[in-house]
Amino acid sequence: MIPTRNVNIIFRRKMIGDVIKIPIRLSTSFQRSVCPKEPTKPSVHLPFPGPKSQELFKELNQIQQAESVQLFADYDKSIGNYLVDVDGNVLLDLYTQISSLPLGYNHPKLLKIFSDDHKIRTLINRPALGVYPGEDYPRMLKNVLLKVAPPQMSNVVTMMCGACSNENAMKHMFISYQRKIRGNDTDYTETEMKTSITNLPPGCPELSILSFYESFHGRTLGALSVTHSKAIHKLDFPAFDWPIAHFPKYKYPLNENMCENDKEDDRCLAEVEELIEKYRKKGKPVAGIIVEPIQAEGGDNEASPIFFQKLQLIAKQNSASLLIDEVQTGCGVTGKMWCHEYFNLPTPPDLVTFSKKMQVGGYYHTAEMKPSLSYRIFNTWMGDPGKLLILEEVLNVMQQEKLIENVNKRD
Amino acid sequence: MIPTRNVNIIFRRKMIGDVIKIPIRLSTSFQRSVCPKEPTKPSVHLPFPGPKSQELFKELNQIQQAESVQLFADYDKSIGNYLVDVDGNVLLDLYTQISSLPLGYNHPKLLKIFSDDHKIRTLINRPALGVYPGEDYPRMLKNVLLKVAPPQMSNVVTMMCGACSNENAMKHMFISYQRKIRGNDTDYTETEMKTSITNLPPGCPELSILSFYESFHGRTLGALSVTHSKAIHKLDFPAFDWPIAHFPKYKYPLNENMCENDKEDDRCLAEVEELIEKYRKKGKPVAGIIVEPIQAEGGDNEASPIFFQKLQLIAKQNSASLLIDEVQTGCGVTGKMWCHEYFNLPTPPDLVTFSKKMQVGGYYHTAEMKPSLSYRIFNTWMGDPGKLLILEEVLNVMQQEKLIENVNKRD
Repeated sequence: MIPTRNVNIIFRRKMIGDVIKIPIRLSTSFQRSVCPKEPTKPSVHLPFPGPKSQELFKELNQIQQAESVQLFADYDKSIGNYLVDVDGNVLLDLYTQISSLPLGYNHPKLLKIFSDDHKIRTLINRPALGVYPGEDYPRMLKNVLLKVAPPQMSNVVTMMCGACSNENAMKHMFISYQRKIRGNDTDYTETEMKTSITNLPPGCPELSILSFYESFHGRTLGALSVTHSKAIHKLDFPAFDWPIAHFPKYKYPLNENMCENDKEDDRCLAEVEELIEKYRKKGKPVAGIIVEPIQAEGGDNEASPIFFQKLQLIAKQNSASLLIDEVQTGCGVTGKMWCHEYFNLPTPPDLVTFSKKMQVGGYYHTAEMKPSLSYRIFNTWMGDPGKLLILEEVLNVMQQEKLIENVNKRD
Repeated sequence: MIPTRNVNIIFRRKMIGDVIKIPIRLSTSFQRSVCPKEPTKPSVHLPFPGPKSQELFKELNQIQQAESVQLFADYDKSIGNYLVDVDGNVLLDLYTQISSLPLGYNHPKLLKIFSDDHKIRTLINRPALGVYPGEDYPRMLKNVLLKVAPPQMSNVVTMMCGACSNENAMKHMFISYQRKIRGNDTDYTETEMKTSITNLPPGCPELSILSFYESFHGRTLGALSVTHSKAIHKLDFPAFDWPIAHFPKYKYPLNENMCENDKEDDRCLAEVEELIEKYRKKGKPVAGIIVEPIQAEGGDNEASPIFFQKLQLIAKQNSASLLIDEVQTGCGVTGKMWCHEYFNLPTPPDLVTFSKKMQVGGYYHTAEMKPSLSYRIFNTWMGDPGKLLILEEVLNVMQQEKLIENVNKRD
């Protein structure tokens, strides 16, 4: 837990890892009418964190390693853009629970969702969605997730969190790559079946995923192998030997450094091609590329539409899939529903992962990527219909309150 | 989706992967009083799956690979032990959503949980628990999760699902192993910091986890590397080169084959020791052992208390941690809260993972296993307080209705 003297660090830390736009709902007169009881300004009592937070911290730290905890919140009193803590401090929240609360605290429309009996039953009878989905699951996928799908992406799979979404989207890329090599994804040889059980090729082939320095894609061992933002996430954990390329680092202002920045794109893209070649020769061909539209946790690194267009072309030329990780950048925060919509890609990316503000994890993929067999991408829960109910209302409010338009007005 | 003629396969499939005991709430006269509207018997109309399920399947299969779906359920009408589908079929449910519904459908006590305003706010203001937990989080961990903790396990970490729980518990074992080697888990060299970013040793050391044939621990790439039950889960996906030992296969009846089964224990344990030695020499030392108390998805394979006692001893002798995966066997289904309580281990296992019936993922660990630094085991959500609210009531009902005692009566 942060010591008293570091009160400002909270606010500085909040900015790290968040995307560049102003959070969607930062006070407008319209906003005031939605949240009439929202405070007008922050109010912090010293010492901070206060005595109640300190007390609860001691209690929690007995039960688990809790040093990352900054304060204990009062989620009944928090409202709109303001987080209220257990000591009565009122904080303007730019952090939104690591980008997970698109509408701030206690939005009146969200408070009403579960006054409906069917929705309560959806919450408590949690299904194994891959086996016994509820009657309304196809409709929910269509009316909620596909309603805001990236252009031309017709398929969607739900998961539990961002890391699992990236893990499964990577698995999806491996299936797709092997299908291209083998000509199908249905006829496996006996040797493949047998060796797969023991983690060995050809059943478990030595394929790789190309990622970028400073990237963040999650912390499970597969997702962590494509994450390169901070040592603290990775120390002591074994990782796959997969290729890592440099993400462009531009000089600003952009319009005064166009030539140099074009060269920076080319340098990074040439490295991507070299690495694909290197890993092919090494016997670990690149099945897919994973990339954030804006590197967030690893800094605030943006790349040009041209960079992404050329990256997609390189992927296609090498039979690799392109996975755009929009866990951090998705759900309207950049002024479009999905940040990669700014890139004018000639064809959609093969997969787009989401989580955080979307309330539930998952990924969109193109129709061509659909595996031929079931149980390839599968787990017990396959997402959570209860979270889809919250997302449904979040998207309704975003539309009714014109929140994406609001983000664009603040450019 | 299964064709009409295979109606019985559903019931056979249901048995695969579930543990051996009779499901907790299978109709008793007491049960009848809790669920007065529960049907008295199944009722299935042919053809099965019915026309509505078939129609919804077509719709869903356009959106995602849905061939694993067996039927579409009506979760408003399902009750107690009976799953009602959209065509009005009434099925006696031994499958319980892949072991996720400890109290059956629409238990009256669970239906009431979210009539409380604070609990609704807990649902919609989902926190980043590692940074801003709510006021009641330490109390919930104590009164809910620690109340049913395995003996002498004082620490608990929550996660989102079973696979993530195993992934993070494995990371926890890597930290612990490196701490033993290094003497601390706070002072990392510059070389370690630097190489960790690029997935290379010494920052990302080549450590391994020992697992067993026929095991199932999840499907993210790390968890999948210790899963060896079925080829369909593993084909096309790269995996870590980690050691795999044989899990005992006993001859039954046990009391007539004691001598042979003892030898089988010894054979498997000798293999564990050989593999630990082999992987040490290979430069991939075993940091931990992951094992199910009863192999479930991979069959219905049990091992003796002696086997587990000796396995724990081997782990200790080799500075490896022991992780018992109770995702499938936990939450009372074997007649004890945790199946490994049958093993009379002289000291607790280092970690015990849970999910499924527990509603939320996570793991218990001993106080000694606590990492010194924060952000080592971390992610955006770190579990879900909304699911803890459901678990709280599940455990209350299990106590009030004496469900674990009921399981034991049915031995």
